[in-house]
Amino acid sequence: MLLEKITSSEDVKKLSHEELQTLADEARKALLEKTSHHGGHNGPNFGVVELTIALHYVFNSPKDKIIFDVSHQSYVHKMLTGRAQAFLDLAHYDDVSGYTNPHESEHDLFSIGHTSTSLALASGVAKARDLKAENSNIIAVIGDGSMSGGLAYEGLNQIATEGTNTIVILNDNEQSIATNPTGGLYTALRKLRESKGSANDNLFRALGFDYHYLEDGNDLESLIKLLEEVKDADHPVFLHLHTQKGHGVPFMEQNREAFHAGGPYNPETGAYLTGSQVGETYDSITTDLVLDKIAKDPTVVVVNAGTPMFIFNQEQRKQAGKQFVDVGIAEEEAATMTAGLAKNGAKPIWVVASTFMQRAYDQLSHDIALNNQASTILVYMASTNAMNDESHLGFFDIPFLSHIPNMVYLAPTNKEEHQAMLDWAINQNQHPVAIRVPVGPLVETGVKDTTDYSQLNKNKVIQKGSKVALFGLGNFFHLAEQVAKVLKAEHNITATVVNPRFITGLDTKLLDSLTTDHKVLVTLEDGILEGGYGQTIASYLGNSDLKVKNYGIDKAFHDRYDATELLAANGITVENIVAQILNDLK
Amino acid sequence: MLLEKITSSEDVKKLSHEELQTLADEARKALLEKTSHHGGHNGPNFGVVELTIALHYVFNSPKDKIIFDVSHQSYVHKMLTGRAQAFLDLAHYDDVSGYTNPHESEHDLFSIGHTSTSLALASGVAKARDLKAENSNIIAVIGDGSMSGGLAYEGLNQIATEGTNTIVILNDNEQSIATNPTGGLYTALRKLRESKGSANDNLFRALGFDYHYLEDGNDLESLIKLLEEVKDADHPVFLHLHTQKGHGVPFMEQNREAFHAGGPYNPETGAYLTGSQVGETYDSITTDLVLDKIAKDPTVVVVNAGTPMFIFNQEQRKQAGKQFVDVGIAEEEAATMTAGLAKNGAKPIWVVASTFMQRAYDQLSHDIALNNQASTILVYMASTNAMNDESHLGFFDIPFLSHIPNMVYLAPTNKEEHQAMLDWAINQNQHPVAIRVPVGPLVETGVKDTTDYSQLNKNKVIQKGSKVALFGLGNFFHLAEQVAKVLKAEHNITATVVNPRFITGLDTKLLDSLTTDHKVLVTLEDGILEGGYGQTIASYLGNSDLKVKNYGIDKAFHDRYDATELLAANGITVENIVAQILNDLK
Repeated sequence: MLLEKITSSEDVKKLSHEELQTLADEARKALLEKTSHHGGHNGPNFGVVELTIALHYVFNSPKDKIIFDVSHQSYVHKMLTGRAQAFLDLAHYDDVSGYTNPHESEHDLFSIGHTSTSLALASGVAKARDLKAENSNIIAVIGDGSMSGGLAYEGLNQIATEGTNTIVILNDNEQSIATNPTGGLYTALRKLRESKGSANDNLFRALGFDYHYLEDGNDLESLIKLLEEVKDADHPVFLHLHTQKGHGVPFMEQNREAFHAGGPYNPETGAYLTGSQVGETYDSITTDLVLDKIAKDPTVVVVNAGTPMFIFNQEQRKQAGKQFVDVGIAEEEAATMTAGLAKNGAKPIWVVASTFMQRAYDQLSHDIALNNQASTILVYMASTNAMNDESHLGFFDIPFLSHIPNMVYLAPTNKEEHQAMLDWAINQNQHPVAIRVPVGPLVETGVKDTTDYSQLNKNKVIQKGSKVALFGLGNFFHLAEQVAKVLKAEHNITATVVNPRFITGLDTKLLDSLTTDHKVLVTLEDGILEGGYGQTIASYLGNSDLKVKNYGIDKAFHDRYDATELLAANGITVENIVAQILNDLK
Repeated sequence: MLLEKITSSEDVKKLSHEELQTLADEARKALLEKTSHHGGHNGPNFGVVELTIALHYVFNSPKDKIIFDVSHQSYVHKMLTGRAQAFLDLAHYDDVSGYTNPHESEHDLFSIGHTSTSLALASGVAKARDLKAENSNIIAVIGDGSMSGGLAYEGLNQIATEGTNTIVILNDNEQSIATNPTGGLYTALRKLRESKGSANDNLFRALGFDYHYLEDGNDLESLIKLLEEVKDADHPVFLHLHTQKGHGVPFMEQNREAFHAGGPYNPETGAYLTGSQVGETYDSITTDLVLDKIAKDPTVVVVNAGTPMFIFNQEQRKQAGKQFVDVGIAEEEAATMTAGLAKNGAKPIWVVASTFMQRAYDQLSHDIALNNQASTILVYMASTNAMNDESHLGFFDIPFLSHIPNMVYLAPTNKEEHQAMLDWAINQNQHPVAIRVPVGPLVETGVKDTTDYSQLNKNKVIQKGSKVALFGLGNFFHLAEQVAKVLKAEHNITATVVNPRFITGLDTKLLDSLTTDHKVLVTLEDGILEGGYGQTIASYLGNSDLKVKNYGIDKAFHDRYDATELLAANGITVENIVAQILNDLK
């Protein structure tokens, strides 16, 4: 097997063109073997097998710098740079991350997981090269889905302004995570593809690039020829490659959205091995409620940036029709458009994952919150129990979102509460309201929640006790309940148990009342400790005699962690919390 | 005077074309009178007098919606929509803000102060119109300087995807706040201007717009004709107007950067009435040190996004040469480029104002901090004593920046400390280091600071006392000193006075030691209380017997406030702090 002997660009260069094709076959076989067992980003990697081999054949990594946008398509790059075992040997599958990772290899420049950054990174890497008066090729590989992000455009502008060697490779497989939007950039790309690169009004030439088009972006020979042509160019180059997502695997070629990422799957049929969720989940009840609102009110509109699957499958998107907007991977547009929609009388619901919401901080603050536009923001995967790659963490949203003035951030703890909050958020016209969609098993009370959420910052006291007060926020409310149970059962302490519901403000009346007959107040939140909810309580009670102990995750980019272990390492176990309370009561 | 009689589009429409020209002359006279007395955004407003009159002549605001990007060019719009007195009568100059403001008028849709948002807002406003099946023109007016922001590109794409009526007006005066970058978009715009709109590779046609060019964008007749032509279009329209910044005022036309904003000035000569700063300031010592580094090391490079004047005047930019980069108004590019520069061995210094830094939250987190790229970030105007428009507040940076892992955020309190921190930040290769450039009069100790800042989170105890500990962060350190003085002089209490220096981490050893012989710990920070520095201390000490009182600003978008009053309203006066301490000591 050739693949096992390759450790870098140097080794790839020694192969004949025939052997390179064999290498491509081996790589594709390894991809199918690993992703069908292990899951991962499927289509994106199958689509760039030939491109990646051509890149390492023509260029000299790490002297030449290859930057992969999002870097979810870097599996073959990893195979060719000393990490083939991680794709050939089941026991080593987890040796590598799903993204480029500088801790793994000098051939990986950055830890990347968010889109549209590669061109801006390349502009900096190239400028540093120029300042040092060195020679090397700087190559950025970016998909058509990522090109919708404003930072990609900013990067193109800067590369063009620098005017020196940077090779931008657009891997145009006509597909984002889901379907691309139809207009703007995507009309321009379609026209270029249809004309084999010769259409008038070439966007990339307009911006100053030496533009080249390649129709068969999965043809190794053509790729090598093209890359050799532009290697060592003294100016910015733009290569528009027409590739096929999932190339070489029929069921991936045919079902590009389903095979963007996922698995394990049957490598022959493409049937996913994990069945679809049975019964209600927090996600499904959210979808149901939103679809119901859409059916009843033509001004309710769901906005999202390239990740519709958080709320709607393809059929549900059709059902929502014009009341569903996918702006492409462009979170800033989604947020600011939400402000515009609200201003002109629509009822926008912005659907976003915690990790991607941070891409629109200024739009949340300057456009939505400063203008106090009534809108709903559904925050998905905001938990230590969500995506666990260091680039996709969902536990920073409380610090960055909840200190923005005017914003109302809600943390539901059960089905009925979530439904009531969502219903209120959509119907009201006073505030931007974000809801942290619960992560974990659905909890039902069976009793409709009739709370008036327009009375902001009113916490719900579930159980009135003394000495100890437990504030369990959102996903961690049930942990507070467990602590209360143990305190009662094992130590005969009836704790006050509070469901704060509001992250963005304190129930000062309740807190003041607790200072009279409580000694210890514990806060539990599913996010980092610093800058979080609990610290606002610690501050408020700072000069009272009520002791406050805040629990949350330490401030770090944890990578591929085990959630239970991470929580335990931060003292977040029932056992430890109880022990600490008993100690503080002494 | 015609101007006094105009209250809306309706009144403008009644005027003859000759009267419209008179109106333009009156408006320009009023602008000169007010801005020369009062200061403001000069050039941008003089450049759009005719455009604004034409807009209100042709369209029907507020049914038709006009959205001004940044909205610093909305003075004439305000004159024509019932607010002329604020430009004609000195006593009413402060009746209006310097930006569009929905609290002033239904003709102002949004409170806006950051760039590049208008197209995304328009896309939402237009989509709401379409959902409601209404008819109206949605018009966005955006300058060439703002077009460099990625959100503008995202907005263009969404408008094109919607495919319905939105009229984008590019007010191309060939100038941003400072000079535009030379490449990318700006090459494209230059080619379009030089060819009177007929150049090949038309960027805006490529994105799907019905493109029109107008060479004399300050000619009222041509503007009216063009706007009438596109009014009620059923598709996205792009009007490229070639205008002149500062039109009609020779010294503004000639010195476009100096007359972007400022004043008061002599309306005849253009001489600014406030002399240039004499002697050293925190800004000047920053500039001196950075220029010295640049001269000594070719890899030191200053990056900024369209606001070079924070650190360099035009001459200093020339001096820095290739070691100075202005990416245009594109903060995300500046941040991510900084990560790229650092990765490839350069020593980047990103210069940014607090309010604009929030436009790159994800780039700070995902590109700089996750990748732990050694770089320096100079944070300007981070204070309650900086810009006081609600859209430009400089007191949210501690909550949004300091809870990002790996980030080191420093708060210097005097000249020597600032210099030592800056010197260390540039030379080290371990951390991304942000420095909150002090705001206020320069304080000198006269003693070189030899602290080793690589020992993170070590606070400096300035005075060791007992009972009371005062933590004065950055700009508020001197307030802590004043409180200490009063405690000593009037109450014979020797307080411990601490200069934390590090915002991003606690000196737990020091804090632990204080619990033994102190009763009250006070934190003072020049920023909002919630999510700030003090709350991390309150949390750390939450279950100790040491009482903690945090001082900071309440969470709100304060607008055009008086800083002293705002601080007093938040209890931040020496008198109140002392009284509270005495109370807590009881």
